[in-house]
Amino acid sequence: MTITRITQANSERIEIDERRYRRVAVIDLGSNSARLIIMRTLPDRFYYLEDEIREVVRLRSGMTEAGLSKEAMARGVATLRMFNRFCESLAVDELIATTTSAVREAANRDEFLAKVASKVGLRLRVLSGEEEAYYGAIGAQNALPLNEGVVLDIGGGSAQLSLIKAGRWQTGQALTLGALALSERFVESDPPTRSEVRRIRKEVRRQLHEIPWLNEASPTVIGLGGTLRNLARVTIRHRKLPLGTVNGYLLRDDEIKYLVKRFRKLPLNRRQRLAGLSSDRADIIMAGAIVAQEVLRWLGANGMRVATYGLREGLFFEEFWAALDYPVPDDLRESHVRNVALRYNYHATHAAHVQRLALRLFDDLAALHGADARERQWLAAAATLHDIGNAINYEDHHKHSQALILGNGLPAFGPEEVAMIALMSRYHRRGRPKLHGFDPLFDNPAVAVQRLRQLAGMLRVAEFLERSRAGLVTDLRVEWDESDITIQLIGEERPVVEMWDAGRKGVDLMEEAFGRTVHLRYDGEAWA
Amino acid sequence: MTITRITQANSERIEIDERRYRRVAVIDLGSNSARLIIMRTLPDRFYYLEDEIREVVRLRSGMTEAGLSKEAMARGVATLRMFNRFCESLAVDELIATTTSAVREAANRDEFLAKVASKVGLRLRVLSGEEEAYYGAIGAQNALPLNEGVVLDIGGGSAQLSLIKAGRWQTGQALTLGALALSERFVESDPPTRSEVRRIRKEVRRQLHEIPWLNEASPTVIGLGGTLRNLARVTIRHRKLPLGTVNGYLLRDDEIKYLVKRFRKLPLNRRQRLAGLSSDRADIIMAGAIVAQEVLRWLGANGMRVATYGLREGLFFEEFWAALDYPVPDDLRESHVRNVALRYNYHATHAAHVQRLALRLFDDLAALHGADARERQWLAAAATLHDIGNAINYEDHHKHSQALILGNGLPAFGPEEVAMIALMSRYHRRGRPKLHGFDPLFDNPAVAVQRLRQLAGMLRVAEFLERSRAGLVTDLRVEWDESDITIQLIGEERPVVEMWDAGRKGVDLMEEAFGRTVHLRYDGEAWA
Repeated sequence: MTITRITQANSERIEIDERRYRRVAVIDLGSNSARLIIMRTLPDRFYYLEDEIREVVRLRSGMTEAGLSKEAMARGVATLRMFNRFCESLAVDELIATTTSAVREAANRDEFLAKVASKVGLRLRVLSGEEEAYYGAIGAQNALPLNEGVVLDIGGGSAQLSLIKAGRWQTGQALTLGALALSERFVESDPPTRSEVRRIRKEVRRQLHEIPWLNEASPTVIGLGGTLRNLARVTIRHRKLPLGTVNGYLLRDDEIKYLVKRFRKLPLNRRQRLAGLSSDRADIIMAGAIVAQEVLRWLGANGMRVATYGLREGLFFEEFWAALDYPVPDDLRESHVRNVALRYNYHATHAAHVQRLALRLFDDLAALHGADARERQWLAAAATLHDIGNAINYEDHHKHSQALILGNGLPAFGPEEVAMIALMSRYHRRGRPKLHGFDPLFDNPAVAVQRLRQLAGMLRVAEFLERSRAGLVTDLRVEWDESDITIQLIGEERPVVEMWDAGRKGVDLMEEAFGRTVHLRYDGEAWA
Repeated sequence: MTITRITQANSERIEIDERRYRRVAVIDLGSNSARLIIMRTLPDRFYYLEDEIREVVRLRSGMTEAGLSKEAMARGVATLRMFNRFCESLAVDELIATTTSAVREAANRDEFLAKVASKVGLRLRVLSGEEEAYYGAIGAQNALPLNEGVVLDIGGGSAQLSLIKAGRWQTGQALTLGALALSERFVESDPPTRSEVRRIRKEVRRQLHEIPWLNEASPTVIGLGGTLRNLARVTIRHRKLPLGTVNGYLLRDDEIKYLVKRFRKLPLNRRQRLAGLSSDRADIIMAGAIVAQEVLRWLGANGMRVATYGLREGLFFEEFWAALDYPVPDDLRESHVRNVALRYNYHATHAAHVQRLALRLFDDLAALHGADARERQWLAAAATLHDIGNAINYEDHHKHSQALILGNGLPAFGPEEVAMIALMSRYHRRGRPKLHGFDPLFDNPAVAVQRLRQLAGMLRVAEFLERSRAGLVTDLRVEWDESDITIQLIGEERPVVEMWDAGRKGVDLMEEAFGRTVHLRYDGEAWA
């Protein structure tokens, strides 16, 4: 790219023009709860959650052979009327309204759909089990990269399993293994008895046995739904990890086993007070946990990554990525980094320039630090995001950047990667990087902190070489030996501010992390 | 105002168009340090600090009858070159470059100014003592309301005193009472001896005695400058107050006295480690503290409010408020609230509507709660700012709003007011308000928390009555008796979403705070 002098206002306006914003609403009337999400979007480019309403409807409760109960239908209609009204008020550009297993399986589904049409003026799309599995998988693949594996979505009424090959959804189906459905069918005691648990396991295995493709599936699993999000949250709280989101957390089979043991011992009112567990899940979480256990066992997997996107987001992304032949971008990680950056009006030109210089340092010093391509991605992401904290305040913006990255949690990256990117941003100006409680995420914290210091050190030098945001240092070359690192600065004019500021404040961390003296030169003339 | 249905994008674009942004830079070459601030502005409307550089230059050190030393001049020129380069790179629209006492009093000032002109290409404006006092006062009056009183600005080389009457600067002058100047002249021991302290006091009194108008001045004092900011910060840390800024903090004479006692006992290396005290101030803070003490004593005042704006901001505001006959707006508080709201792209239409409904509740219930006009202002401010946390994230945006308000600190409001406004915003959606560590700011915390609950309760009802942001509830009327509060909703159509959501989630806090059942009615028809 060519760097031109450009003001922040301009560079932002190029990226993002609010007049082109659209509002997309997705309504999902599930068996347990109904949700409305409203996304503000710049199609194919940028989106964020603007508003959300969740209502516990329990459409399935009191369901018989005759279908949904009168009361359940009334609750459903009332909630949909509110959601629809809300969308009208916000002048939503597009409304996607769907419902799943409870209505799908109800004998009186047509009666209910007619009620919704006449009383609310809403045409509800009833998703088939296959469609429900597909959209869940699309949500999952937009939250976490998955090339070969399985997506498990545990809902209230049903649970969906999908097969992913070569990055594409192949097949999938809904099973009557929803946490609520199983609880209502098998659980009478509180806490559930050993035999009730045994009968749930037996039923889960019976249904898994029916799935022809499950044996050929690769054992990489992404888990969706409130049950799995809650299991991950309880575990993260238990491990005291300072994570802002559960997305990407690897929930291990032994962690689930431990929780099932605890649930077996705790009566409902104690389960409801479990840290991280939402009280309206406490009664059905046990059955959901058992489904997760059995799927992992069947596939011989020792854990699954939990994703926070699911069916609703899948429906949204089909719309958002309409320009793609399959609604998951090839550059998933880059697109999420860019999305967070745009969310906070990042200075696109400055960020791109810092990234260019930082990656040049990384590449020219490859033989010295030996970091891999994944770590190079972290540096690239931190270079894009290091200044987003300015959206909060110039003062301490490095700390604000850290908070925004951890709070949003960068979909498509694992927790340890998000932590590294957040900490690099935190230390792009000054200070000696520490792991700040993320130690348990790394096999070897000592190695991780040393790597963090090398990466943050290179980011800091790149930032100071672009201190006046003028793109004066267009490129650089690095030479090094046992005792020194010499950075040759390339550009049309001598970068006075940059060499001054970098020389006195920018090189300290890099010198420590690489155990060498860092020299900045322009036209071969020595500075520091 | 009339409420029309409008999308967030539109309502924001009306308020703020980045293409009209300008960058104003102010350079201040002081006796101790040189500062560059860069403001992004929409003249007469909106501004924020975009970037800042501070350099310790100590222009005054080594100064003789012959004037500034060669080394000091060289440091000054080098620093100004960097600042100027930085401004060029950022394509600053306007550059205001000034210098004060050190250059003003230097015999070789013309030589130095010529050097700066030739080597940097910068025309430095040398402020007279009167001008220095004036611009400091303008900064102070933009940070805190002051109708009658005195502004004391303690700098490195000089200290300025200004007289304010009827909200206008009347007269003022610079005294050679800068913290650095006094230290160099009277302090040789570390820590300063009793007799050194005595000689400083004597000199301060001697100079105060020279000021004709000081005896007629009203004893309301605003204090400026690094010395006073540091004294306030040390005190705030000592009291463990969770304040994000020192602006508006009332620094009492007994608090200063306590610190002077400590400084007398601590050698420099211990003073430098004092929590809240910046290490490059530790050596000169004592002299500055004594000046503050003597001014308060002279005026018979028991404390002064500390302001974070000063000379630089005064120079900036002269530019920013060019449309006014005196560069301080009449609606100082409202303009700062609006400024913070615009900084975070608030939803102007929604905020104005919530404010209208909240203030109507306040006014109709006046006889019941008995709150005063000041507390009404807090409610109005919270109604404007309650949603700014959405700039960080929709999830937990009420907590983000609290953090942004505390972090920015709302100029023109006192710390206890900022705390109240932040806490009201924090609790505009749910939860039972507490004081969260701000208790020491209130004479009677029990009364304060009850007031907080009444105000937050009214804000919450107003917010829920505007839940769908459609302005359906255009106005309301309140009736109450011993047991009930009835809110009659006014609007063209029945506000379905609002009555539903407010009825189930919005009235709880108001019911507790007022000890009455709250009913929502539309067209006389009962709902809750």
